[in-house]
Amino acid sequence: MSPKSPLSPTTRSTPRRHRERARDDRAELHALLDEALICHLGVIAGDAPLVLPTCYGRLEDTVYLHGSSAAVSLRSGAQAPVCVTVTLLDGLVYARSVFSHSANYRSAVVHGDARLVTEADEKLDALRAIVEHTTPGSWDHARQPSRKELAATAVLALDLTEASVKVRTGAPADEEADVATGAAWAGVLPVRTTFDKPDPCPLLPPGVEPPAHVLARVG
Amino acid sequence: MSPKSPLSPTTRSTPRRHRERARDDRAELHALLDEALICHLGVIAGDAPLVLPTCYGRLEDTVYLHGSSAAVSLRSGAQAPVCVTVTLLDGLVYARSVFSHSANYRSAVVHGDARLVTEADEKLDALRAIVEHTTPGSWDHARQPSRKELAATAVLALDLTEASVKVRTGAPADEEADVATGAAWAGVLPVRTTFDKPDPCPLLPPGVEPPAHVLARVG
Repeated sequence: MSPKSPLSPTTRSTPRRHRERARDDRAELHALLDEALICHLGVIAGDAPLVLPTCYGRLEDTVYLHGSSAAVSLRSGAQAPVCVTVTLLDGLVYARSVFSHSANYRSAVVHGDARLVTEADEKLDALRAIVEHTTPGSWDHARQPSRKELAATAVLALDLTEASVKVRTGAPADEEADVATGAAWAGVLPVRTTFDKPDPCPLLPPGVEPPAHVLARVG
Repeated sequence: MSPKSPLSPTTRSTPRRHRERARDDRAELHALLDEALICHLGVIAGDAPLVLPTCYGRLEDTVYLHGSSAAVSLRSGAQAPVCVTVTLLDGLVYARSVFSHSANYRSAVVHGDARLVTEADEKLDALRAIVEHTTPGSWDHARQPSRKELAATAVLALDLTEASVKVRTGAPADEEADVATGAAWAGVLPVRTTFDKPDPCPLLPPGVEPPAHVLARVG
């Protein structure tokens, strides 16, 4: 898949509600995945869905997730259908009617059978992608994984073949009658994720300053 | 269930990984659900999991979700096993080894068969709970739902009977050897969700100021 190739959703990955919010730009999917910090991984465990938050990384058109080799979510998701959902909440939409209240958001939903990564080079690349997505600069700054640590870590790969993106932006969509009567105040309360000043580990020797790759994230 | 009754997880709602992070305090579950803005609803659609972000509200020990009466997620979740997961990301944990990198978070995972709310009074109470959770003050300020709007809205109820809470807080948990050698900087980058100044609807008459219940949310 080229980054230029549009999202080509299947039936289940074609949004049915609010189709005007669906996007088919693969670059928009990539940008959303790169901006968000966590995803929610859905698997079928027994006869019920199980949804857990987790970190992830992206390389080209593959999303990588990791966890303990013993984790139920990863064991249930390997070679089985999973759903990875990434959501950015951008605002709360106050409308003139409670019915028209909404949220501004960007969300990606990726379906597919996840693949357990077994090849050593791909596993290392995947772990680097996850670490560099979540904490950019850490892969080179911190100690690299040992053979034992690598063995304790399972990595799942999910291709971005069957993915959809939905986006809502802008003002409330009120009924004309509610706008005319001025039923209530209406507008958007923007929601933002920010980083505060880093909180150093108490075991650091005195005088050690946070490195540039950490400070760069603080607004 | 009394608010004092501890969480009594079943096998599937007993965290297996990092058990030291599990909490059994029902008040902590309530507080987490009340603080977060969105949840991720997992259902089984066909033979695959489907995870979608959505707003919610809580009344006592019931979580309510709503959506279009025609939405696949709601139709798949009614009288069927669902999983509702709520996550607050509190910090990114930079450790001395990449393996010990982690995240500080609070997450709740609720399992159960969701129930379609059909009784009119409960449906109205549930919608009020969802609106007041997401946009406090809006229920009384904005126009109430019409009969037609109520009919177009489906509400699911999920009891907080089978729920678990996991929390990670504090500094990195590095190997002693990595602390001793000072392998890297270590600490926590706090993550915070904030509200920006409200963005008024362009259709509002000039001079209309945001009401106190909206302004109260801005830091």
